[in-house]
Amino acid sequence: MTFQDCFPVWNKLNTDQQNRILGSLMSRAVKRGAILHNGDRDCTGLLLVASGQLRAYILSEEGREITLYRLFDRDICLFSASCMMRSVQFAVTIQAEKDTELWVIPTEVYQSIMAESAPAANFTNELMASRFSEVMWLIEQVMWKSMDRRVAGFLLEEAAIEGTSQLKITHETIANHLGSHREVITRMLRYFQSEGLVKLSRGMVTLLDEERLAALSD
Amino acid sequence: MTFQDCFPVWNKLNTDQQNRILGSLMSRAVKRGAILHNGDRDCTGLLLVASGQLRAYILSEEGREITLYRLFDRDICLFSASCMMRSVQFAVTIQAEKDTELWVIPTEVYQSIMAESAPAANFTNELMASRFSEVMWLIEQVMWKSMDRRVAGFLLEEAAIEGTSQLKITHETIANHLGSHREVITRMLRYFQSEGLVKLSRGMVTLLDEERLAALSD
Repeated sequence: MTFQDCFPVWNKLNTDQQNRILGSLMSRAVKRGAILHNGDRDCTGLLLVASGQLRAYILSEEGREITLYRLFDRDICLFSASCMMRSVQFAVTIQAEKDTELWVIPTEVYQSIMAESAPAANFTNELMASRFSEVMWLIEQVMWKSMDRRVAGFLLEEAAIEGTSQLKITHETIANHLGSHREVITRMLRYFQSEGLVKLSRGMVTLLDEERLAALSD
Repeated sequence: MTFQDCFPVWNKLNTDQQNRILGSLMSRAVKRGAILHNGDRDCTGLLLVASGQLRAYILSEEGREITLYRLFDRDICLFSASCMMRSVQFAVTIQAEKDTELWVIPTEVYQSIMAESAPAANFTNELMASRFSEVMWLIEQVMWKSMDRRVAGFLLEEAAIEGTSQLKITHETIANHLGSHREVITRMLRYFQSEGLVKLSRGMVTLLDEERLAALSD
């Protein structure tokens, strides 16, 4: 799989633009846990995930987290280059959730191409609209859904991503994804366990009844 | 004030593009309370506010509301044309909060210009990034701020918009802006009144101590 295969508007760029990208493109491999982009202090560039998994989240002043969205193979991270748009007035942190290989297009290169290429600019629009949609989904979850439904939905999503119903995850991590506190999550998971929905063991949550979890999360 | 003065990338469009906009541009005057765009059922077009005030909000299945952002003179509403971007997967309602005069560029005209003009596409990017920033601000409010701080902040914002500390507003309306329930807002306002921050009367909230409200909302 080459960069050209993964970058959606490649064929709509002219040769000069293609060469400017190839001439500045970097490959990076990062370990699980690495911070790739730290809020508004960095302007790393446009990231294209070759393989692995990234998580975008925001941090409160008190250090609480909430996950905005995840990026998987072939996904593109726009906010690691958000300094190129002056209207982006918020700080997102990007962390590798798995060992990840990615390509980086430097911000100034992508910005110069976007300025002259309508296809690149419109592609960027669609990217931003996708992330915006994920954040709107999150707002709806936070505003209208109770925490039991959100925890049930999160466990099912994790099981789908990992391809297993035995999740190696701490209550603290779940709290950080959902913008909650560890105590709240522990209480909820114990309630789920008493209802026969999950089984809890050290550093592990096993889903026992995905059907009822799905009914709860809807 | 003409449309050309208010539309930021006007001078970066070519004559053909300018003519296509002028040939399809519509002027509209709507009354306070009118719904201009109803979620994903409409694709009204790009709205440019000449004068007045619009509110963008989302609705839960149960009919609860939360305000995403407001639009004032010279502001542009992108989501009334969101059908032109397939990645926009959420439904926003746009309502006139005051009698409003506006221009409408039909969706298909704006879309065709964006497809060929990098300046128009990049301008749309900046528009979307602005709205995205407002929604991120909202998420941070909802996630990390308690309701007393949000109500105090909302009252101060309203007073600034209306240019008066005597707000003609119902508790129901405040609840709809903040995604809360009327009962919660009434309880909070009574507490504010007992603290000497506001005075409540029928259909009216008068701010008595903006300094302490500001300290509370921070």
